[in-house]
Amino acid sequence: MSDRTVGVGMIGYAFMGRVHSQAWRSVAAFFDVPVIPRMRVISGRSREATKAAAEQMGWEEAVTDWREVIGRPDVDIVDICTPGDTHAEIAIAALRAGKHVICEKPLANTVAEAEAMVQAAASATGRSMVAFNYRRVPAVALARDLVAQGRLGEIRHVRAQYLQDWIVDPEFPLVWRLQKDKAGSGALGDIGAHIIDAAEFISGQLITGVSALTETFIKERPLSEGSSGLAAAGGSGRGTVTVDDAALFTARLSGGAVGSFEATRFATGRKNAMRIELNGSLGSLAFDFESMNELWFSEGGKGFERILVTEPDHPYVGAWWPPGHGLGYEHTFTHEIRDFLEAIGQGTDPTPSFADGLRVQRVLAAVEQSAADGSRFTTVEDT
Amino acid sequence: MSDRTVGVGMIGYAFMGRVHSQAWRSVAAFFDVPVIPRMRVISGRSREATKAAAEQMGWEEAVTDWREVIGRPDVDIVDICTPGDTHAEIAIAALRAGKHVICEKPLANTVAEAEAMVQAAASATGRSMVAFNYRRVPAVALARDLVAQGRLGEIRHVRAQYLQDWIVDPEFPLVWRLQKDKAGSGALGDIGAHIIDAAEFISGQLITGVSALTETFIKERPLSEGSSGLAAAGGSGRGTVTVDDAALFTARLSGGAVGSFEATRFATGRKNAMRIELNGSLGSLAFDFESMNELWFSEGGKGFERILVTEPDHPYVGAWWPPGHGLGYEHTFTHEIRDFLEAIGQGTDPTPSFADGLRVQRVLAAVEQSAADGSRFTTVEDT
Amino acid sequence: MSDRTVGVGMIGYAFMGRVHSQAWRSVAAFFDVPVIPRMRVISGRSREATKAAAEQMGWEEAVTDWREVIGRPDVDIVDICTPGDTHAEIAIAALRAGKHVICEKPLANTVAEAEAMVQAAASATGRSMVAFNYRRVPAVALARDLVAQGRLGEIRHVRAQYLQDWIVDPEFPLVWRLQKDKAGSGALGDIGAHIIDAAEFISGQLITGVSALTETFIKERPLSEGSSGLAAAGGSGRGTVTVDDAALFTARLSGGAVGSFEATRFATGRKNAMRIELNGSLGSLAFDFESMNELWFSEGGKGFERILVTEPDHPYVGAWWPPGHGLGYEHTFTHEIRDFLEAIGQGTDPTPSFADGLRVQRVLAAVEQSAADGSRFTTVEDT
Amino acid sequence: MSDRTVGVGMIGYAFMGRVHSQAWRSVAAFFDVPVIPRMRVISGRSREATKAAAEQMGWEEAVTDWREVIGRPDVDIVDICTPGDTHAEIAIAALRAGKHVICEKPLANTVAEAEAMVQAAASATGRSMVAFNYRRVPAVALARDLVAQGRLGEIRHVRAQYLQDWIVDPEFPLVWRLQKDKAGSGALGDIGAHIIDAAEFISGQLITGVSALTETFIKERPLSEGSSGLAAAGGSGRGTVTVDDAALFTARLSGGAVGSFEATRFATGRKNAMRIELNGSLGSLAFDFESMNELWFSEGGKGFERILVTEPDHPYVGAWWPPGHGLGYEHTFTHEIRDFLEAIGQGTDPTPSFADGLRVQRVLAAVEQSAADGSRFTTVEDT
Repeated sequence: MSDRTVGVGMIGYAFMGRVHSQAWRSVAAFFDVPVIPRMRVISGRSREATKAAAEQMGWEEAVTDWREVIGRPDVDIVDICTPGDTHAEIAIAALRAGKHVICEKPLANTVAEAEAMVQAAASATGRSMVAFNYRRVPAVALARDLVAQGRLGEIRHVRAQYLQDWIVDPEFPLVWRLQKDKAGSGALGDIGAHIIDAAEFISGQLITGVSALTETFIKERPLSEGSSGLAAAGGSGRGTVTVDDAALFTARLSGGAVGSFEATRFATGRKNAMRIELNGSLGSLAFDFESMNELWFSEGGKGFERILVTEPDHPYVGAWWPPGHGLGYEHTFTHEIRDFLEAIGQGTDPTPSFADGLRVQRVLAAVEQSAADGSRFTTVEDT
Repeated sequence: MSDRTVGVGMIGYAFMGRVHSQAWRSVAAFFDVPVIPRMRVISGRSREATKAAAEQMGWEEAVTDWREVIGRPDVDIVDICTPGDTHAEIAIAALRAGKHVICEKPLANTVAEAEAMVQAAASATGRSMVAFNYRRVPAVALARDLVAQGRLGEIRHVRAQYLQDWIVDPEFPLVWRLQKDKAGSGALGDIGAHIIDAAEFISGQLITGVSALTETFIKERPLSEGSSGLAAAGGSGRGTVTVDDAALFTARLSGGAVGSFEATRFATGRKNAMRIELNGSLGSLAFDFESMNELWFSEGGKGFERILVTEPDHPYVGAWWPPGHGLGYEHTFTHEIRDFLEAIGQGTDPTPSFADGLRVQRVLAAVEQSAADGSRFTTVEDT
Repeated sequence: MSDRTVGVGMIGYAFMGRVHSQAWRSVAAFFDVPVIPRMRVISGRSREATKAAAEQMGWEEAVTDWREVIGRPDVDIVDICTPGDTHAEIAIAALRAGKHVICEKPLANTVAEAEAMVQAAASATGRSMVAFNYRRVPAVALARDLVAQGRLGEIRHVRAQYLQDWIVDPEFPLVWRLQKDKAGSGALGDIGAHIIDAAEFISGQLITGVSALTETFIKERPLSEGSSGLAAAGGSGRGTVTVDDAALFTARLSGGAVGSFEATRFATGRKNAMRIELNGSLGSLAFDFESMNELWFSEGGKGFERILVTEPDHPYVGAWWPPGHGLGYEHTFTHEIRDFLEAIGQGTDPTPSFADGLRVQRVLAAVEQSAADGSRFTTVEDT
Repeated sequence: MSDRTVGVGMIGYAFMGRVHSQAWRSVAAFFDVPVIPRMRVISGRSREATKAAAEQMGWEEAVTDWREVIGRPDVDIVDICTPGDTHAEIAIAALRAGKHVICEKPLANTVAEAEAMVQAAASATGRSMVAFNYRRVPAVALARDLVAQGRLGEIRHVRAQYLQDWIVDPEFPLVWRLQKDKAGSGALGDIGAHIIDAAEFISGQLITGVSALTETFIKERPLSEGSSGLAAAGGSGRGTVTVDDAALFTARLSGGAVGSFEATRFATGRKNAMRIELNGSLGSLAFDFESMNELWFSEGGKGFERILVTEPDHPYVGAWWPPGHGLGYEHTFTHEIRDFLEAIGQGTDPTPSFADGLRVQRVLAAVEQSAADGSRFTTVEDT
């Protein structure tokens, strides 16, 4: 084992844990990273399930207390894959213990928690990163490059949608993602956060204010094992949905652009349509994650070109396969971890930083405030 | 000449006049209409140009005073193709003269004018119709049918955009469409009106309130022959753009849906992308006028089907060509006039009526008021 | 009526007659043609039906003998819209009578007839043209321009398909188009002829030899009113299909390209997919008539650009509507007739000429010969 | 380490070696395979490069003689990723040594070699498989399922193309893939083999005869380090291309379908467009690997539905991510190895077998023979 090895401990092992594991396992086989991750330990609440997950996903050990992960001297990096209400506590503890921290998005469930995390990161010796993985879709990274090179000119419009349909059925149960105490918000924080980050990342402009409207189409749903606070529901078979099903907002951005945003879990037939279009004075870009290897680009008065983002000189692509041989969802995480390891190795700060995560949190807060306040235009704090 | 002949007089002969003429000329060759139009007379301000237009477009006579058209006993139908600030006066006069009236959209430049027109229509013997031609795109009519049949279930989302790019160049001159006194508004009234009407038409729901934001990206432009009020500009070579370049709004609809709307002339690379997507509890629909012979439809948890709307049992299509042989922009007008003649022949009221046109006007007014009032949610009058 | 008027007589009034009529009616309203067509007379076998057709489609008179059309001094142009087995006789008579002739494709049912027509054209005073209307799709004309400008470099591949599905049902009756004596061939001559012409037109190369395979999937079909030679069927309810359902061939072209061609009426779900793709040393083009306002173009190692062929500087488009407002099937005929009138007015020979029609006929003959001869590579006569 | 462990030895470590390694590394983390692969050893000619590859790709050891891999008792599975001219010798030796063998396609460079391999497989105790990975694209596997369920009815048309453009530049050097002694054939065997296998796999019909045409557009290319037999070139800087650049053929299939096939490396702008369309009496399917997560399906007279093949009940997909989160190229290999391990664990024969590989070889041989024989229709041996 090389002395460039760094130990990794992961907290949580569900959906996000599985995809992060694949990234940790694959990154060094494709990228020439300065430090080589070793998958030391994962933690989860159930001893048996965690042990099984560790074995399947290739982690050396399994524990049931996340504090144990943070306390281990052979763990250099802590990877937080738990629900948002636990992020602040874990991340702050890990940073104080001198670890590098990569934390799933949204950074936290409240602005206050996110601020505390940013403070902890500022005074820590470890590096920290929030995992907005869509920045690492090669087509999205290429989009940002084209904007940064001035190929679109002055950006006037940002048009972003994140459309899913997994809770259209009114009999879909009241899982924790539909309960505010656990999830913070609904479509807004879960998927709206991604398009807010992507819009700012690609456009290079910050969202300065928003006018918003949110809606919960199905007010009550069947309780299930995944519901929290069953007692509060008083024994009835149904509980109240306390988060948004859909969030829509218009926005102004720091560079003069106007924006239109929509996040919903009720777009029947749309599975993971994370879409963004930018219109500038010289050109336009359009992207849809359902066709993640394509970027549509128009400039010079011409039609939209379908760029198949599989060329060796496209971001991240050179490490993989020949032209026309596409990548999938999990590669965005491999790219993210590659960039994280690169920053650790070079002693620089990775992006998106916790401060970037806080920004998204502030936009989310402004959206909720505007929606509560008759859609009144609401300034995003600190921009 | 059949005794089923009706005389037509048209006011205005520019872009809209040309396409209306093609519709008048073609309608009876393809549809078995109860009355047969005869293209009697057009009016325009320049004698010579009007005469040339009449000859080219197949009108029997040309005059320079629209009142002359209305006064003629051999004119049964008056077709108003002039800018919006003249609609009310002409339409009211024509209705009072006992004529049938078809009037280009938007119905008027103000709610007050539109109200006067609705009143005139109510007490008239002639039939009246406002020309929202996009209702007559076969794919749009099919979309409405699918919604009306309940195939989408309960509609939750309406997502409509009208994207053009013809004034992206800051040196594009200050034509009358960019001046409020003449045009009423900018992208909002010109193209936003179409998606408002289409959204209500297809969804079967009315827009009850809006939260809006408008923007004028280029504040001054070169004066040109097409600019009005040159004197006011005080001799300088540039004048102020007094209308919106883009208008964005979110909305609530009468059946519980939420809507996201955007009209802009700054979407570089988008030429006439009049797009609408609806998501319901059972299915979804998507349309883009740039591919006007296609409708995308998803139901039953399946992917989106590309319906090529060229089958004989699709709306209006049976009159034309075999499957797969598409129609173009002008056909929407032929269909519109066919429906108008049908209503005249059967003694019924055609749709969209002047009252429908007034509704759109009220939504436009609410959008402008909300935009002026910090995007505050603003109720649409009378819904 | 201007002295630039030319009288038109049309033979046949079915599908092709209807679309030609719309073209004659519309051409002068949109194009500044040197001579103005006047729709004098149509002929058909049934007096009543022909009279009704004339009235609906706007022809002044109806007759039942095509010779009467040719004999009239007020007819300058003869437009032949009948089945292929009658083309030679009518066209040759019309040319001998000093008329200009536009003839539907295929030029004839046999090479011998086509050769006779070319001879007649060569010694005639009138102009002649064969109506391969797909050349007049703006996207197809633009494709040819791009090739002619060298934008694709040396052409290596031509890949053309014409896919329909209207006889997939084995109970579809034995109409004349499925009988060799009337139709000459099946999918091959009906739609294969179009892609042969388009391939040569766009690529600028001639097909020098072919290797072919044809198939008739459904050998017998129900007899119907549209079947010819009922007696031969001996009273049974079914008759033999005597033409191909599908024809496939590979080819070599005069400039070194290789080609792949397929025409079928058994491509379930494809309605009128007339598709062509060209690959050259510098770039590629792709077209599908089901999206007739689009041309896909790749050059310089870039992805395929979706050119919306609706710009004023695109072929034929300037006469019509603003960018993004598409055209339909019938416009290809209006463009064809515009070019025909232009040639008549300027005293030049229109294209495609009867000689071009003969070339297609020779390719069709080579295809049939190769298919009959174990797919052996067969040289196209006279290339 | 579980006693279900099987040792794997891989011969060759270039492009195919990298993607196979990723599959071996990932398979057990996502699929519940009956035996767990352990990545024991790889072999390559250069000691240093092989050692570096082993380290990067996660193999325990590196050797320089493939016989050493086959001789090891801790190797149960031999994975052959070398060029086609070495397959027979290695595979036969491995089978005789009692190993399970998975061999890259094409199975061999000649029919005779392939026959010997099939014989060796028949008398071996180990299992054998040829790696036509495109069968394991979820969309391709779903296509086969739909056909097998009868959803397309009787298949009439198979239309398959494999389009690439990586040697369009005439200055691209004479690499071994362009030399017959090493590569066997050009586009035909390299990518044509894939569409032959996919066509038979999806349609359930065998290709019984072909009529073919091949072409080498660029006859000479610059020599390079990758060229073999430099001496033969006599010191000049250029050598002769001895394989096809493109191969086109029509075909007849055992169930009555006709086929159109094309493989080329000269389709400028097409990167890895492995496309197949099937038309049946009841429905049609279309696929393009450049959009590998989509399958287009039409049935019941409806338009083509875009099936996003990312649902848990789609083939292989349940092991991965939620709907709408696509897979990439490498996953096809993980699926292939999963099926191979499944067969080993269950004691059954995996598919595609060496016999399936031989079939493809025989079709390739018939194509070459027909091309050499004036495109004469040539029966595929043994069908």
